[in-house]
Amino acid sequence: MKVISIGLSTFAEGLRQQGASVIEVDWSPPVVPLKTHTSAGVSIEDANHEAVRRMMQSRPMLTGLGLAGGVIPGLGERTILHAGPPITWDRMCGPMRGAVIGALIYEGLADLPQQAEALAAGGQITFAPCHDYHAVGPMAGILSPSMPVWIVENEPFTTYSTLNEGLGRVLRYGAYGDDVYARLHWMVEVLYPVLADALVQHGPLDIRSFVTQALHMGDDCHNRNRAATSLLLRALGPALARTCHDRERLAQVMEFIGENDHFFLNLAMSAAKAMALPAEGIEGATIVTTMSRNGTDFGIRISGDPQRWFTAPSGRIEGLYFSGFSAEDANPDIGDSTITETVGFGAFAMAAAPAIARFVGGTAQDALTATIQMYEICFAEHTQFTIPALEFRGTPVGIDVRLVMETGILPHLNTGIAHKEPGIGMVGAGIVEAPYRCFADAFKAISTW
Amino acid sequence: MKVISIGLSTFAEGLRQQGASVIEVDWSPPVVPLKTHTSAGVSIEDANHEAVRRMMQSRPMLTGLGLAGGVIPGLGERTILHAGPPITWDRMCGPMRGAVIGALIYEGLADLPQQAEALAAGGQITFAPCHDYHAVGPMAGILSPSMPVWIVENEPFTTYSTLNEGLGRVLRYGAYGDDVYARLHWMVEVLYPVLADALVQHGPLDIRSFVTQALHMGDDCHNRNRAATSLLLRALGPALARTCHDRERLAQVMEFIGENDHFFLNLAMSAAKAMALPAEGIEGATIVTTMSRNGTDFGIRISGDPQRWFTAPSGRIEGLYFSGFSAEDANPDIGDSTITETVGFGAFAMAAAPAIARFVGGTAQDALTATIQMYEICFAEHTQFTIPALEFRGTPVGIDVRLVMETGILPHLNTGIAHKEPGIGMVGAGIVEAPYRCFADAFKAISTW
Repeated sequence: MKVISIGLSTFAEGLRQQGASVIEVDWSPPVVPLKTHTSAGVSIEDANHEAVRRMMQSRPMLTGLGLAGGVIPGLGERTILHAGPPITWDRMCGPMRGAVIGALIYEGLADLPQQAEALAAGGQITFAPCHDYHAVGPMAGILSPSMPVWIVENEPFTTYSTLNEGLGRVLRYGAYGDDVYARLHWMVEVLYPVLADALVQHGPLDIRSFVTQALHMGDDCHNRNRAATSLLLRALGPALARTCHDRERLAQVMEFIGENDHFFLNLAMSAAKAMALPAEGIEGATIVTTMSRNGTDFGIRISGDPQRWFTAPSGRIEGLYFSGFSAEDANPDIGDSTITETVGFGAFAMAAAPAIARFVGGTAQDALTATIQMYEICFAEHTQFTIPALEFRGTPVGIDVRLVMETGILPHLNTGIAHKEPGIGMVGAGIVEAPYRCFADAFKAISTW
Repeated sequence: MKVISIGLSTFAEGLRQQGASVIEVDWSPPVVPLKTHTSAGVSIEDANHEAVRRMMQSRPMLTGLGLAGGVIPGLGERTILHAGPPITWDRMCGPMRGAVIGALIYEGLADLPQQAEALAAGGQITFAPCHDYHAVGPMAGILSPSMPVWIVENEPFTTYSTLNEGLGRVLRYGAYGDDVYARLHWMVEVLYPVLADALVQHGPLDIRSFVTQALHMGDDCHNRNRAATSLLLRALGPALARTCHDRERLAQVMEFIGENDHFFLNLAMSAAKAMALPAEGIEGATIVTTMSRNGTDFGIRISGDPQRWFTAPSGRIEGLYFSGFSAEDANPDIGDSTITETVGFGAFAMAAAPAIARFVGGTAQDALTATIQMYEICFAEHTQFTIPALEFRGTPVGIDVRLVMETGILPHLNTGIAHKEPGIGMVGAGIVEAPYRCFADAFKAISTW
């Protein structure tokens, strides 16, 4: 086979690796010449450099756990945080509604799903993005005041995330019911105090170091967290043994964590948020500092205009479905977990985690190609996170809206798939691209700077 | 660059991956035509097929722990087992002598090193290869009756290995002294009973499954065992919590394992021995079933003639040295750990563990190339052990002496380096090839079948 490849070198590279003979033609789509300075004369290059420098230099530490209502500043009693950009109850997707219903019953604000729905629709509950409170949550990302949260610090920023519930019928995928509440109650009554005591005994844990190691152990720390979860348990084990006086409780906590390869995910997300925050608000910086979905809208925010969301409808996921489910059942893309891709791991480090590509229906080569392509839209290569299969090259980090528009390449994400109806749960996993319109609108805004 | 590559396709493949244009010429060195049948008419192909089938179908289970003297059949009170082929005290290398001295003092048979040396030289101690007792030991591989051992079963075979002591000044690298004895005593008094109780509560552990998973997590389960050690601790955690009544002992056990990335190594070796044993003694099979070094001699044994050692001087290791040491200080290649390469992991799966290549001074590409080359001398591709970076291709398994002689490619090994003097310990790590002469002599023997 002989191929003429026009434009992006990654396509030619991929073909060559398959053994094809490729002639490359240098070409790129006709775009407006890239802006290099704001009208105030600020160098965009310099601003972006500062943004990614701050992301990479951040070293988030897990310093403790607490109940959300007691530790997240300003979180009201009747406030429910959710994943993604702002959204009202009437526009929420099924799994987010399901998780809200579950959270209201867990909080004791309603006894039955119908009551919870009426309450949510009645205007007495305040809904806000997790991101507004420096929190992040996977999938529906529902966080209510009585839930325990990880506390991650990256001076002067503090971030929060819930504890991962595991697989099956879980709140974050929109499931509610007695099994879901029972698990949440066990988590607040047993898991939370046992972990909190162990962490006091152990002292702060360097979460960036876990991510760095896990990227050398087949994880991307978004859709695969097996190594990171194992390393976390290994690190906390002695402190757990020294502080937990009840052997059966200790065993249950170890079992709960040990049976959930995703236990580390929420910590990875909280650490990622703590890396993104210092990069926010740099004048002239065109680097994405938030990328998130509420299941209805996908939203991004950029460093130079940090409060403004650029949104578009959430994408449909290409994936593999559990037995008995199909694309018909799938909710669009949802969750704050894309904070990992925002700071240079997750799907951007998929070359480090070829097993994920397989899990969502691809090959190890697809995983390599996915990462290699992301270098085209990223401003830098990470100084901390490296990929063995690419000779320990730094991961692509700092999505530059200008490069996305110049290349036409959109950020790749990989994600779990929630059923579109409330109350059901996870139905599969797959890959998806961030919507073009978010970047086009952000690019338009940048052009006015 | 345009290259004409004569013979082995791996050379051409390597060059192509570097971007060179390669023309391949089919050629191999003129050798005696490969024997296909024994004089009794047994098909070597069929015999080899059966040997690797048995290796791959083996599923070794960790079923318990015990004191070597009580569980290893026929192990006498004054018997000391060692790594590699048979050797007498006068020919033992420095680190093996050091470990023997340490073991005799640990056993209470001597008080001082000089007494131990006199005892060892005096003929009152029986020395025998670990392999003679279905045991395996890393580096010096010294195993004495009062040491606790893992018990691994693969019906109808049972194999044994000591518990890994960790890094630093340890017996297996030839160190002896109060610090070494204190650790060995703690291991028998605390680590052993705590692990044994937990294992009874947990039930048998599938060690092959740990290796399979760890090969997808950056380990080769010979020189890198970080993932496997983490997975082991994660699996045993709840049972440890339920059975250990003393919280401080439990914490110390978790700390000891958690601080030693190589803790899983001895289990991997014992499991590998349990995979190799069923492949022994198949008439006409030219597959290597033992590959081992005592620090003086390197020895191999083959399936069709399972008791006969083919030996040659142990190789010099190319490696990286710890600060203050150099190649001058290095003992030749030593240890039973090459049982891992014998059954299709370890250095043969180095493509799964690029961080090792880096540790011994190479690149991720070197790790890939090392594995790819081993396919040339192996009879099969493993049905259980797979390598993500090679699109989950099975690892090369079953070294065929005929293929080694046909290609001139020798098995690659990677290994720790012991100081050549007794009493010092580890000084570095590196790579080495199995000696040509072992294979040439085995090939000569095969030609008489």
